[in-house]
Amino acid sequence: MAKTQITAEPGTQRVVIEREFEAPRELVFRAYTDPELLVRWLGPRELTMTVEEFDVRDGGRWRYVHTDAEGNTYGFRGVFHGTPSPDLTVQTFEFEGMPGHVCLESMTMEERDGRTLVRALSVFQSVEDRDGMVASGMEQGIQEGGEKLEALLAELQAG
Amino acid sequence: MAKTQITAEPGTQRVVIEREFEAPRELVFRAYTDPELLVRWLGPRELTMTVEEFDVRDGGRWRYVHTDAEGNTYGFRGVFHGTPSPDLTVQTFEFEGMPGHVCLESMTMEERDGRTLVRALSVFQSVEDRDGMVASGMEQGIQEGGEKLEALLAELQAG
Repeated sequence: MAKTQITAEPGTQRVVIEREFEAPRELVFRAYTDPELLVRWLGPRELTMTVEEFDVRDGGRWRYVHTDAEGNTYGFRGVFHGTPSPDLTVQTFEFEGMPGHVCLESMTMEERDGRTLVRALSVFQSVEDRDGMVASGMEQGIQEGGEKLEALLAELQAG
Repeated sequence: MAKTQITAEPGTQRVVIEREFEAPRELVFRAYTDPELLVRWLGPRELTMTVEEFDVRDGGRWRYVHTDAEGNTYGFRGVFHGTPSPDLTVQTFEFEGMPGHVCLESMTMEERDGRTLVRALSVFQSVEDRDGMVASGMEQGIQEGGEKLEALLAELQAG
């Protein structure tokens, strides 16, 4: 299966992340919005994840923390704009290690023949912020997260 | 007094809006966050404004409607990311006439010698969205709004 495609055109403030999954979109949406499922796949393999808050509604807040083997923690938080749905989920995103540098994420899920294409657009406040995020090793976490989600969706459909 | 400065560099997804007011920033912040004051200055002169919701807190939603002389309505809505303060207020912004086209606004207020510089950065999902907003006549509404706010702040300080 194809890996996650990450597009970050030079000089823009955008990152587009696309991946297709062998699963109906309702199930994919559940994996993105149910904290018990989310912690099983989001982010790099070497980090563990704890969801502190995940209020999936218009204005609802979310916050999660990734922890590495040495116990260092990395917190992320944001709010949902509009009612999240497989058609469109819009949220803000901020890494607490860089307060004030917020980005806006919009995600769509499109189902075709039982497969679901997830497309996420992240927009940063500046080209520098975008480049900094790309340089931070974002890609590895996204690729590993996509692989874990693929495996989780297969397990959920087998069970 | 200087007018509002609006910067929209070609080919970017950003608009920066700056204006200095003859008022302490706590008062300016109140004019931005108290719905009774907000309706007296925000937007072009020929529209009337109604605030439907304005919940100034982390995750709080806001929605207002502008109405023209013919009764046409223009709704806008968003959510606050983080706790709004004069130091930093971050919010999403969506014109309901173009659903799904959301932008992210960050505003700072800096006080010097009793004057307050308000700086607002708007980030759009694409260059096209940004150019569309600029072409929509945004500038007139912002200039008129700035003039009305200037007058309102003078009135509040005289009273």
